[in-house]
Formats: sequence, structure tokens, C-alpha cells
Amino acid sequence: MKLPGQEEFEVSSACENVPTGELDNGTGSGPSPDSPSDTDRGEVGVPKDPLLFIQLNELLGWPQALEWRETGRWVLFEEKLEVGAGRWSVPHVPTLALPSLQKLRSLLAEGLVLLDCPAQSFLELVEQVTRVDSLSPELRGQLQALLLQRPQHLIQPTGTRPCQGSAHPREASHSEEAPLKEQRQNPLRRKLPPGSEAGAVLAGELGFLVQPLGAFVRLRDPVVLGPLTEVPLPSRFFCLLLGPSTLGKGYHEIGRAMAILLSDPQFQWSVRRASNLHDLLAALDAFLEEVTVLPPGRWDPTARIAPPKCLPSQHKRILSQLKEVQGPSAQHGAPAEDRYGHQPQLHSPELQRTGRLFGGLIQDVRRKASWYPSDFLDALHPQCFSAVLYIYLATVTNAITFGGLLGEATSGAQGVLESFLGTAVAGAAFCLMAGQPLTILSSTGPVLVFERLLFSFSRDYNLDYLPFRLWVGIWVATFCLALVATEASVLVRYFTRFTEEGFCALISLIFIYDAVGKMLSLTSAYPIQRPGYPAYGCFCQYPDLGGNESQWMRTEPKDRDDISSLDLGLVNASLLPPPECARRGGRPRGPSCHAVPDIAFFSLLLFLTSFLLAMALKHVKTSRFFPSGVRKVLGDFSSVLAMLLGCGLDSFLGLATPKLTVPSEFKPTLPGRGWLVSPFGTNPWWLSVAAALPALLLSILIFMDQQITAVILNRAEYKLRKGAGFHLDLFCVAALMVLTSALGLPWYVSATVISLAHMDSLRRESRACALGEPRSFLGIREQRLTGLVVFILTGTSIFLAPVLKFIPMPVLYGIFLYMGVAAISSIQFTKRVQLLFMPAKQQPDLLLLRHVPLSRVHLFTAIQLACLGLLWIIKSTPAAIIFPLMLLGLVGVRKALERVFSPQELLWLDELMPEKERSIPEKGLEPEYSLSGDSEDSELMYQPRAPEINISVN
Amino acid sequence: MKLPGQEEFEVSSACENVPTGELDNGTGSGPSPDSPSDTDRGEVGVPKDPLLFIQLNELLGWPQALEWRETGRWVLFEEKLEVGAGRWSVPHVPTLALPSLQKLRSLLAEGLVLLDCPAQSFLELVEQVTRVDSLSPELRGQLQALLLQRPQHLIQPTGTRPCQGSAHPREASHSEEAPLKEQRQNPLRRKLPPGSEAGAVLAGELGFLVQPLGAFVRLRDPVVLGPLTEVPLPSRFFCLLLGPSTLGKGYHEIGRAMAILLSDPQFQWSVRRASNLHDLLAALDAFLEEVTVLPPGRWDPTARIAPPKCLPSQHKRILSQLKEVQGPSAQHGAPAEDRYGHQPQLHSPELQRTGRLFGGLIQDVRRKASWYPSDFLDALHPQCFSAVLYIYLATVTNAITFGGLLGEATSGAQGVLESFLGTAVAGAAFCLMAGQPLTILSSTGPVLVFERLLFSFSRDYNLDYLPFRLWVGIWVATFCLALVATEASVLVRYFTRFTEEGFCALISLIFIYDAVGKMLSLTSAYPIQRPGYPAYGCFCQYPDLGGNESQWMRTEPKDRDDISSLDLGLVNASLLPPPECARRGGRPRGPSCHAVPDIAFFSLLLFLTSFLLAMALKHVKTSRFFPSGVRKVLGDFSSVLAMLLGCGLDSFLGLATPKLTVPSEFKPTLPGRGWLVSPFGTNPWWLSVAAALPALLLSILIFMDQQITAVILNRAEYKLRKGAGFHLDLFCVAALMVLTSALGLPWYVSATVISLAHMDSLRRESRACALGEPRSFLGIREQRLTGLVVFILTGTSIFLAPVLKFIPMPVLYGIFLYMGVAAISSIQFTKRVQLLFMPAKQQPDLLLLRHVPLSRVHLFTAIQLACLGLLWIIKSTPAAIIFPLMLLGLVGVRKALERVFSPQELLWLDELMPEKERSIPEKGLEPEYSLSGDSEDSELMYQPRAPEINISVN
Repeated sequence: MKLPGQEEFEVSSACENVPTGELDNGTGSGPSPDSPSDTDRGEVGVPKDPLLFIQLNELLGWPQALEWRETGRWVLFEEKLEVGAGRWSVPHVPTLALPSLQKLRSLLAEGLVLLDCPAQSFLELVEQVTRVDSLSPELRGQLQALLLQRPQHLIQPTGTRPCQGSAHPREASHSEEAPLKEQRQNPLRRKLPPGSEAGAVLAGELGFLVQPLGAFVRLRDPVVLGPLTEVPLPSRFFCLLLGPSTLGKGYHEIGRAMAILLSDPQFQWSVRRASNLHDLLAALDAFLEEVTVLPPGRWDPTARIAPPKCLPSQHKRILSQLKEVQGPSAQHGAPAEDRYGHQPQLHSPELQRTGRLFGGLIQDVRRKASWYPSDFLDALHPQCFSAVLYIYLATVTNAITFGGLLGEATSGAQGVLESFLGTAVAGAAFCLMAGQPLTILSSTGPVLVFERLLFSFSRDYNLDYLPFRLWVGIWVATFCLALVATEASVLVRYFTRFTEEGFCALISLIFIYDAVGKMLSLTSAYPIQRPGYPAYGCFCQYPDLGGNESQWMRTEPKDRDDISSLDLGLVNASLLPPPECARRGGRPRGPSCHAVPDIAFFSLLLFLTSFLLAMALKHVKTSRFFPSGVRKVLGDFSSVLAMLLGCGLDSFLGLATPKLTVPSEFKPTLPGRGWLVSPFGTNPWWLSVAAALPALLLSILIFMDQQITAVILNRAEYKLRKGAGFHLDLFCVAALMVLTSALGLPWYVSATVISLAHMDSLRRESRACALGEPRSFLGIREQRLTGLVVFILTGTSIFLAPVLKFIPMPVLYGIFLYMGVAAISSIQFTKRVQLLFMPAKQQPDLLLLRHVPLSRVHLFTAIQLACLGLLWIIKSTPAAIIFPLMLLGLVGVRKALERVFSPQELLWLDELMPEKERSIPEKGLEPEYSLSGDSEDSELMYQPRAPEINISVN
Repeated sequence: MKLPGQEEFEVSSACENVPTGELDNGTGSGPSPDSPSDTDRGEVGVPKDPLLFIQLNELLGWPQALEWRETGRWVLFEEKLEVGAGRWSVPHVPTLALPSLQKLRSLLAEGLVLLDCPAQSFLELVEQVTRVDSLSPELRGQLQALLLQRPQHLIQPTGTRPCQGSAHPREASHSEEAPLKEQRQNPLRRKLPPGSEAGAVLAGELGFLVQPLGAFVRLRDPVVLGPLTEVPLPSRFFCLLLGPSTLGKGYHEIGRAMAILLSDPQFQWSVRRASNLHDLLAALDAFLEEVTVLPPGRWDPTARIAPPKCLPSQHKRILSQLKEVQGPSAQHGAPAEDRYGHQPQLHSPELQRTGRLFGGLIQDVRRKASWYPSDFLDALHPQCFSAVLYIYLATVTNAITFGGLLGEATSGAQGVLESFLGTAVAGAAFCLMAGQPLTILSSTGPVLVFERLLFSFSRDYNLDYLPFRLWVGIWVATFCLALVATEASVLVRYFTRFTEEGFCALISLIFIYDAVGKMLSLTSAYPIQRPGYPAYGCFCQYPDLGGNESQWMRTEPKDRDDISSLDLGLVNASLLPPPECARRGGRPRGPSCHAVPDIAFFSLLLFLTSFLLAMALKHVKTSRFFPSGVRKVLGDFSSVLAMLLGCGLDSFLGLATPKLTVPSEFKPTLPGRGWLVSPFGTNPWWLSVAAALPALLLSILIFMDQQITAVILNRAEYKLRKGAGFHLDLFCVAALMVLTSALGLPWYVSATVISLAHMDSLRRESRACALGEPRSFLGIREQRLTGLVVFILTGTSIFLAPVLKFIPMPVLYGIFLYMGVAAISSIQFTKRVQLLFMPAKQQPDLLLLRHVPLSRVHLFTAIQLACLGLLWIIKSTPAAIIFPLMLLGLVGVRKALERVFSPQELLWLDELMPEKERSIPEKGLEPEYSLSGDSEDSELMYQPRAPEINISVN
């Protein structure tokens, strides 16, 4: 899946309010003034107008074979009929020639304008429209017949050929008012939300007219105008633009101009409220005031512009309109802090300090308790089934990968079985109790890294690991409880992008380093055999031959010739190949005896295959190939599929690659321990007190990891109704810490990526979707059941163990590498590092490059690199275990950066810390703002969200 | 390198007249009306105006600290000052708000317009401009002082911070008229062609003015206006737009409007010729008539549009202007066949039949003879050195790869040595004699495929290969001579894209199939050792033990237990590992004895590494990383670098991978033959006659391969002055055929890719380059010397042989695969096959999809796939050798397609065959054209060129 932080942060593609990178399911940033996302911003309630589908029917074939043909349609963007290809073009930004707009204006000014026309049928409408003085009765009849002629529509998916309507003029009858079959079956209909209205523009050249005929009608009650529009929607607007041949093809462009005008939200808004011709023309003039003009010499007017990822915000335009209509009071709703509007959005209202001990926790519990019954009832939706399947697979992949790595890291103190069990128990408990039940608890990179350091520390000092770990867990829980009591979660606001990126980059680099390191260590375990030395350093030793082991050690290879007594084909058995030796009761001894040929290179191939396949499959999601469903499955299950393929390849060749260690029965991986960890083991008693020290470090890590994730999950853009529970979540994590430590299971915190995937699979969206517009996002099915079921399934998957032992370790390392690479490439820091290698001319048009001098950007990147280098050095020393403290130190470095960079620079490079955030709007703007004007407003909104720690499978 | 056919053929990126895909060095399609590419089209000679550099100086800081600052500049596109970042924005298409244009119009209408102002200095100019009634003398003085104040420019590469000019008003003095040091050192100066002029727009808010002050000045004699513009160019236009605060920031936009107007080629053209205010306003109105308008609701006006790959053609606009000025006669120059203008361009005038025997050849010789001396003198340019280096490396890589493959394919009848020698001899001879000396002769895929078939045929029938091949060569030369005599080269027009794609696809698929097949055959040669069977099927045989070989054959592995007489560590010597066995005088026998562990997987790794690296390096060229020089080197030498890395990896690990076979001394690869092939050898005499049959097939292949390449190389877009020599080229190929056959060297024809690379490295370009504009392409250094030197160097490289034996075969296979994949992905056919897997909604906005129904596109693709399948089947049967005949059959299939597809459809899917080409314009256009209007004109020009057979290294 794609992550918020992974979005390109180039201007053209960055977009606010898009929780997942793919815009197909994005919420969009208020495509129309009445889109729900706008109403969140505390502005005045703009009346909600229905969506308008606009269709241009053109009169073609003058003078021989007159026919109406639909040649364009608009909802948000324009789709043009590709006559030759018999298909609709891709939706694109409509472009117009200025003269056609001016001609349209004069046609309307001189034509007939009927506002709130009471016509109940197309026949009535046609009669009203043709009731103009300039037409003789005869011409009027001819025109009416022509207008009632059934137009040809291209109904798309029924075929690649246009659906031919009848080309003969027909008598209009009331039976024809009922929508035709082809109209009803139009798949476009399902894409438009209920309540949508249509606008029909009829344009063309009609030679028998003496002067142009323009008519604009707004129907009082929208009515389905028979076969006029390709979708049987009630029509609200009807516009007729006919004229003699003088204008030639001009009518096509004038018709388009009318349609494009109608598709403009502000014009639509005005024209729905217009009471006379003057209002109509004023709306047109207002449109003209705001158009963007491209010079002819620098832009080919026939070029098609792809729809922008973000539509311009319409609420300002509408507000100014409202102000005009209702007076200045209407504007009070627009919040003054709009410029920094993304900051309050980032930090939920739940993060306000109450000032009382456990005040936040109590509030959280109260808030969530009221929703508790609905948390189960809301799960009754078929969508939840697919969510369960998806998240279950992701969770199991995660459990296998982290379990396998943990088993290795802790020399079997924990393993896959513990990973499954722990995930199931902790995850299910969290879903039942937590403040944000959509969160998926999982092993995460930072905690894994810490656990590995803790293990090597305890091994170095000969400690009994699991009892020591139990005390660490107990202390961590205690510290976390203290953090809950003091409402420390509000401090999360000090973790800016700088800190988060340092956190994420360090963990990712450790992942990458470890994956490659483990892979290379395989090549020492299975050394490559150089030519000519297939059995170098390996001899077959018989118990009855050659004395004891120490003697063998002194036997040098060069002695072989002396030993051998070649006679009748009988040679010294010490030269036998190892398997043959073992078969004959001997013992192969020597450094190369366990060398199995081909394993090293085959492992490398498996490693690369699984890594590259996972990367490639992830990119399939954004490719053009395959239907979107297939793409989604391939992208979402990239790591599962890569793992499966690696296993298949391995079992196909049947080589003895190292495999995942899985216990054969349901018992802890460490032999000889029960499920409950003894509180002291062989450790001295004071170690339970000393464990507070590492626990302090782990608490920092857990707090950072948990809270940064929680902030991301509870962002306003996800429109969660039931509120967040930062304190309650941390409390649950603390409680589970004790449980998992006592049982010797892995430690768990909220995992960003998998939780986001969970939320993503539970999106509620408006089913209807206008052409070229992302579906509108309504919210998320907030409930506790899907998570619960996922973890129950994970628990039962413990019985999968016999299958798991077929997973080769190089495949897991490949997935591990993929996780690291995916995480590090998702952060802005990586993109800034890339800037170092790009000549200024080639750099992408990033927003931060527009506003911060390149040298300052590089300086910021260099400081981050230096911090990272320092962290890496610390991580490589024996003091590695203190790295969480150093991560926290990044907050201090960030604070110090305020002396080096101006707030404006930090605003673009990072984000502002709480106190600065408040101070800037008061101080006013620096000169650059006054120069480049309010375009900054929208640019700032495009700034991507802070990234997150997203080391996890998928 | 990127190929013409490899250009994306999506609308947005397709561009005519760009010989190499990268637009950085592309010719552009007439960015300004006076660009040289336009004058080729036979239109009336538009007077050549100088390039105009426009700069907007804004007055900022009212009222406290007034200063002029350059905030925008224009040549073709707009560059905006990023104040915060202190850099120029990326060049982008300028966008305007309509009201600012209208305000500008009224400012100009009411303001001062001085056309042909005689001012000789900035001071004079300022005095003239301020001589308006509305200003009191005091204000006038203040204004003059302000205008003379030195503006602040941002001179880019001197730093990321703006170069601060003095902010104090200064007395103007004549010494200041001399350009400042910062102006002279501005690197932008070197990018503007000599003779460029400047236009300065000064705009801003000036509170002490009572009413707006507009002035437009065209200087009679352009003069450097001191430090006014950042580049010390003589200024032709000067525009002043100042006013009271009422308009606020409006002056910024009005100033931009003026600058954008001035940057429009047509407005510039008109305003240079305007004689009064009326002309000026008329030009502005003409601009307004042609602007493209984007609706405000669908386009964010602050979004920046990247410069289009193709600028709209200005010659129509200018012509209409000329017509207005000079009357209708001016338009006669526009050629009527413009619509199919790309067809005549594709087929050179040299391809007209003379009707006399050898008429074409004689013409060719005459034409080329007159240029012969200049063919050597024109080479005296430093650019030729780098061309030689580049093409030499490409040629050597080609010789190694094809030599290695040829050696394998002919069991050593030829090899790397022959490849070097043949390339040098044939190439040099061709460069000296040929019609198109820029052509690089090389082994090509089709001929290699044929040679392999010919060899296996002669082996099947126990023929003496080289003598047989000699006769084939002689016959081919005879047939080619006949083709030259009858001027058959004109038939090349019947090879449409359909035929070429079939040709290219078949050869590419054979390459891919062979590369993968050879790689897999390595895994049988070096089998993977399964666990537990390291020595399976291999026994040590002693001459004095166990009887003769046939007896051994009957000794089954299961008998081993019975044979063994384990006693005191002495076992049957037949179980010894192979190297030990050989050391002790035995003979290892059995299927697995030669198995060397790890070789199979390591070879696979080498194969994948070299393939993927070559692919990746090719893509570096279009990436954003590294300076363009580095990118170019990495991209151009992708296969050399991939090969080097593969060799390095191989020698680092030192495994016994199979290596390239290279003779140790200078003698033919086949042992026992002299350099001259005996005419009969052991073959019967009649075989020399029978050789005519395969020769006929090879002639077809050579003719197709040679002529299609020749047509591509002689395309009009390369602006070759010395003309083509189709017949002479074919004659030379025929003559060299005899020579190479007699010496037993490979056969050679023109190689498309490497010849294009040669031409590309010899491009003559205008050194000056406007911002955002591709450099204009002047032609190619047509000479014979670079090619000659390349082949002499190749000849001396025979002494590289000792180094070549370190090249592992898997690396060559990897490069081989890369060549196949690169070739097949460059053709439109592949893109249409991809369409089969894309849902209609996801398909790219291809031009052919706009004009041909999808089902027809798929049908065309399916027919091509079927043809390809049939060719593949034939290639897999014993009749494989007749495949050239079948390729020719594609022409017939294409002809038959005219019954299935309409000419319009074929025009988009393929191209038209000669007779149809003539018939269509007479028949007139189908309805679709009349509907969608003349946008088709430009669309058709975007159609990519026919692809080419481009199987060759690089």
C-alpha cells in the first residue's frame, strides 16, 4: 500500500487531505463548494446544490442529413467524443478560446432567458423556447421537429462503436418522455450521485435561420427530458445556441463555452440563484474575471491538460459570492488561522491538557464508553469481511517476518510461535479495550531493534534474558503509566518532521544494513567453492583411525600424499566426500565439510528475487495494467506474493537453503521454559531494580513510536466520528507490556502502515463518482470487530507452523530489505538527499525549493545527515542501547535549529514547534509573502503531511 | 542511447522533428517563427527578427524603501523570481488573469506610445518617457531619479543568494551606461544568441502619482540601457506601468501581462512593425483572440505548467498576419500536401526512379563525387574527436558481442578475431566509398540469425561451410547488383511500419529467446548439485582397474556398496572426487564429473546483473541525477559499463565461468584454414550453383535491413546537405559481401542504432539557447573521416585479444538480452500489445486511440501477433531458412489489410502505401475530420516516425 508520506511532494502531485496516496480513492480537497470536506473547516454552511451533469448535443450534417449528436460531456472535467475512435476521451481540463466566450455572451444577451420555466416535458419546453418573434410559424414547426429529434449518444462500455440512435425525426409523444433502455442501462448513471441534475446544451449551425437563436432555460422543477441526455437525469438547465452558417464551426465552440460555464461551480451557484438576465451575464463576467489565460505562442490550444490532482478550493470563491449576496457578515466563518490550518488539524483536540492527574485517561474512557455498543453493531457490513481477509494476511506476514527475525536476534528466546501467540493475544486485547480500536498492534522496527540490543547486552553480561526482560517490561509499564497520568501525550507536538524523519531513517537504515549483513553472513556459512578445491579442508575421520580430534587438527592437507597408499583402487578413506563419509560411519571434519555447493548464490538469488518482486508488485498498484481490482490485490499483497514465490522457487529446486526455525509442537521456542517467565531466574534480585534503566530507554522508544502513530491515525482528514484516545491507547500498551513480558512474548505497539491499511479497507465512500473526480470520502467504519476477528484468526494460525518451516531465510531477509527501503524512500529527507545529486536545473519543482534557498535546504539536509551519522556511530558502539535517548535528543537539535533557520524556512523544511506556531501569525508576514501574494495560501496547503514511522510489512 | 522509435508516442511527449528522443538537444518544431526548421517547409521567407529577452523590474517597498527588483524574465517561457529561495523558478508556460490584460490595454490606450524613439541612452529615454502633461516638474524629477535607480538582479549561478545592487538612488552618468561587471559576467548572456535584443518592463505602485502612468517605447536603435536589464543586451522595447495604490498588487500582474505579450512571437512581430497606437492595440486584440482560457473552477491559477515538448507552430499565425499586411498572395507558399507532409519527408527525393539501367547508381556517384574533397575537410572540428571515441567504443562492443555469438553459432567457423578484422575492413571501405558515409557498417541481428541457420543447414548436410558460404556471398552480391541496376531501392516505400515492426519484433524475439536459452543451457553444462549427491554419476576410473569403458557404463551406482571394501580407511578409489582422481592418474567418468559447483547460479547472477545494469544505465540518461555530461556518458556507454562490471565481478570471485574463446595469435578462428577461403573445399561443384537459393533469401534480408536503415538515416529531419546514396550504398554492401565471404569474415550491412548514434554525436547546433528552449539543430557534420578513423582503430584493436578472453559468456548473453529487449520495447507494436492488458479507462491518451476504435486497434495488433506467431513457427521448423521470404510476405499481408481497415485507420495504425498515399487527398476527408477541425493537422505531425530495425549494441 502507499503511504501518506510516500506521496510525491512535487507541486503537481502533492495534495492535501488525501489519506492514501492513490487519488482514485482519495477524498479530494473539496472538488465542489458543497463537498463535505469543506464543511469541516468551520465556515458558513453553503447550501448544498445537486451535482450537475452537462451534455453538449451538436447539430451536425447541415444541410443534407441533420442529426443531433452528443459530442462532449462535463461533470468536473471535459470528455470529448473521439469520433473516429468511437470512445470518450480521457477527462481533461477544458480549454476555451476567448472569442467563443464573448460570442456566447452576446448570444445570451440578445436571446431568450427563461428562469424558473414551469415546463413539465420536453415538448412543453421546446414550445416555450421556440416562441420567439423572429421565427415564422413554419420555421418554428421545423425547428420544433428538429429539436425533438432523438440525439445520438455514445454509451461507452456497451461497445467501442457508437450506439446508433435513430436518425429520423420523430413525432414527440409522452411515451418518449420515459427514459430509453439505453439511457437506463448507461453505466454512467451509477456513477452520478442520487439527486444529480442534468444540463443540456444544444448547439449547431442551422442554415434556415436568418439570425442566431440563443435561449437559456432554468427549469423550475427539473424533469427528465426524454432521450435528450444520455443519462435519464432530471434536467435543470437547457441551452439552445443555433444560428446561420456565418459562424461556421463556431457553434461547436460556443456550445462548449456554455457547457464549461455550467460546469464551473461558481457560475452554477450563481445561475441557480439568478433572477434575471443581468444576473446571468454578471455571473458570466465574474467567470471571465477569474479565468486563467495561456498565451497562444507558448501553448498549443489543442493540447489536453490532465486533471490536476488538487482542484482549486472553491470555498473562497463561493464566500466572496455569498458576501456579495448576503453582506459582509457571511464571511466571519472563515477562520483566521487558515494559513496554518494544517497545524491544528494535525493535533487533535484530544491532545489538550486537562491539568488533572489521569484527566486525559478518564476523558478517553468516558468518550469511548458511550460508543462501545456501536463499536460492534457498526461492523455489520460486507466490507468488513474483505478488510478482515486483507489485514489478516498482512498481520500473519508481519508475524512470520518479525517472528523469524526475532528468533534469530534472540537466539531462540522468542520465535515465530511466540510472535503468532503474542500478536493474537495483544492485538485482540487492544481491540477490545483501546481508545482507537482501528489500530493494529504489531511488532515494529524500533522495538525489534531495541530487543536485539537488549538481548546482546544481557548475553554480554551473562544475564538470564527472559526474567530480565520481564522486569524491563514491568518498569516500562510503570513509566508509561506515569506518562498517562501526567498527560504526557500532549508532548507529541514537539515531535516535528525532523524528529520523525530521524527516527524513521535510523530504523530503516538498520533494517537495510541488517538484511544485507545477514545475507552476506549466509555466504560465509555456505562458502563459495573456488575451482580446483572442492573438498579443501575437509576430511573423513573414522573413530578407529587417526587417533583423537586434536591429532587431526595437526594433520595438514599437504601430508595427504604421504598417507595415501594407493593400491588396487583403494585410497585413504579420509578423502571421501562428506556425505559418503557419513554414510560409512565416519565423521567429516574440517572448515569446508558443511559447505554445500550452490547455496550461497542461490540464497542471493532468492534474496534479490523476493526483494525486487515485492518492490515491483508494489508499483503495479500505480501502473496502467490490469483492472484496478487485480492491481489492488497485487499491490496490497506484494510481500505475501513475493514470499510465496520465493518459497516456490526454493522448493522447486529443492536445495538445502537455511529455513525458518519452527517448533514442531505448541511450546515456547526456548527449550525448557514454561509459558510463564519466572520473575528472577538465575539473575540477582537487584537486577529487577536495575532493569529500570533500559526500561527508561524503551519507554522513550515506545512512547515515540506509539504516539506518533496515534497522531497519524487520528488525523482530521480521516473524519473519525468517535474520537481518539491517546491516553487510553498508551495505557493499554503499558498493560499489554506486562502481559507479554510475563509470557515471554514480543512487545507490541501500534503499527502505522498496517493500521492505515486497516482504516483504508474500511473507508466509507459515496458510491457515486463523477467523471474524473475522486470518490468522495465519507468516513471510516469505526468498530472493534474486524481487528478482533483478525487477531482471533492469527491465533488459530499457530497451527500453520508445519507449513512455515518451508520458508527460506533469504526470502525473509529480502522482505526485510524491502521494508527498510520502502520506509526510507517514503520520507522527505530522502528526497532532499537526492537533491544533493541533482544539478539545480534538473531539480523537481518542489514547494520547499520555491521558498527556501537551495544552500539552506542543503544545510538542513546536511545537519540531518550528521545527526543520523552520529546516531549510527552510537548504534555501532557498545553504548548502542541508549539510542532511544539520542532519538529524543533530536527534539533538542530541532529546537536549536531555530537559531540557524528562520521560522519561514522551518515552516517549509519541517513544521513549526508549538510556541512558534502561535507566534508567527502575530508577527505578521515577511516580505516574500507580500510579494508573491496569496498563492502561498494554496501552496502551503499542498505541503505533504509529516511522515511516519512505517517499518512494517506491506 | 535513445532511438527515434523509442520516444513515447503519447500526445504529451510525442514531437516531430526530433531526431533523438532527448529534447535537450532536439531541434524543436519551430519555436519561433524565424527558427530554421520552418524555413525548410517551403513557405515564404519570414523576415528574421532578433530574439527578445524580456525582463520585468518591479517597484517594491512603497512608501518607505523604494527599490527596483527584477521579478520575472521571459525568452520563450516565464521564469519567476522565487524570492524566498533566491533562485529563478523552472521555466514554465506563463499564465495570466484576464483582467490584467484588459487593464494593460486601457493603460496603453491612455498612455504614452513612442514608436521608433531616437533615444541613445537610458537618461534620454527616461526624459522622453516622463515628458507627460500630468506630471508636475517636481514629480517628474522625483520619477526620473527613481527610474535611474539601479535595479536589483538575481544573477543565478554566482550564488543562491540574490546579488544585491545598491539600494540608493544615484545620479545617472554616462559612465553608468557601460554594462556593469555583474551584467557582463551573467552566464545567461552566453545562452542568448548574438544579436538578441532586450525588452524591459518596469511596473509597480507609486503612491505619489495621481493617475496611472503608462508608456510604451520602441527604440529606433536598440541601445544598452545601463544596468536596467540583467544581461547587457541592447534594449528594443521599454515599457513603464506605474500608478497610485488603487490597483495594489495589480501592477505586478499588469507588468507580467506586458512581458508575456512581448514574449509572444506574433505580438512581437506586429509591434516591431506597428506604426501607431492603433497597430499596438490591434496586436493586443489579436493576441486576445487567440489565447487559451482555463476555467477557474477546474484549474488552480497558481499551478505552473511545464513547457510543452512541442511549441505550437507559429508559421500559420505569422502567415495570417502577413496576409493581412501584404495581401492574400503571401499565402501561396504553404504547401497543400502539408497534411501528409511527413510522407514525402520520409521518402527522400533520391528514391525517385530514373528508369535507366544503373541510373540511380550513376546519379548517386555523380552527386557524391562533387562533395568528396569536402568530406575530409569538414572533419576538421574538435567535435569529431569525441564522436570517434564514442563510436569506436560502441563498435568494439558490437564486434565483441557479435563475434562471440557468431563463434558459438558457427562452432568456431568465425569468431571474435574475424569480427574485429571484418568490421575494420568492411567499415573502412564503406566509409571511403559509400553514398552515406555517416553509416556505420556492423553485424546486425537479422544477418546473424540467417548465418546461424545457414550454418546448421550446412552441418545437417555435411557441407564444407566456408566455401559454401563464399558462394552464397557471391550470389548475394550478384542479386544485389541486379537490384541496384533495376533501381529496386525505390520499393522500400512498400515497407511500411507494419513490415518493419514484424521484422524488428521477430529478430528481437529470436535474440531474447536465444539469450535466455543459452543461459539455461549453461545450467545443464554446469548442473546444480542437489543436496546429498555431490558426486552423483561420477566415478574415478583407472586404466588398470575395472575393465574397459563399456563395462563401466554397466556399473550402476547402486553396486557401490558391493564393490567397496572398507578396511582401515581404504575405500574404492572410484569414489574419489574428480580432481583428486585426476591427480592420481585416474580418469573421472560420468555425467556429473565436470560439474563445478556454484557456476550455474553465478552465471545466472552475472547474466541478470549485466542485463539489469545495462537497462538501468540506459535510463540514467533521462533521470534527474548527475550533471547532463555524466548522464550522457553513463547512458551512452551503458552496455560497455555493464560488460566491464560483469567482467570485474567475475574476476573478483575468480570462478571458472565459461569465457569468450579468443585465438592466442593472429590467425583464423577455425584451425587449419588460411585467410582466403578456397572456392570449393570438399563441396561438389554444383553446390556453387545451388547456393543461389539461400543467397536469394539472404538478399531479401540484406535488402530490407540495408534499405530500411538507409531511409531512416536519410530522413529530412537530419538536414543532410550532401544528399543520400541509396543505390551506391547497396552497391558497396554487395561488393563488401564478396570480400568478406572470400576471407571468411562476417557479413555486414548498415546498422541503424550505431549509425544514428554516429550522426547524433556529429550534430551541429546553435550554441545559444534561450531559457526553456531546446537548442536549435543546424545539421550534421557530414564527412568520411570519423567513420574511417573508428574502423582503423577497430582494426588495431585486434591486439586486444588477450584481454578479451576474460569476458565471461553469461555477461555477453546479458547484453544480448538487453539488445533484444531494448529493440522490442522501442516499437509501437509493443505498446499496442500492452494496450491489450490495460482497462480502457487506464489507457494512455495515445493519438491512435483518439482516432481508431479500440476494437480495430486490437484487431490490428492481433493480426500482427498472428503473423509473428506464424513466422516463429516457420523459424522453429527445418524450413527456418526461408524466413526472409516470409518477412517479405508481410508486405503482402499489409496490402491485404487494406481490405479490412479503412485508409484513415491505417494512417494512424501504420502509414499509407505509395498508391494510397496519392489517392487519399483527392478523395477528401471523412466526416471525422470535418468535425474535429484542424487540430488534426498538428496531431498528425506528432505521429512518431516509423520504427527501425535496431538490434545492435547501445
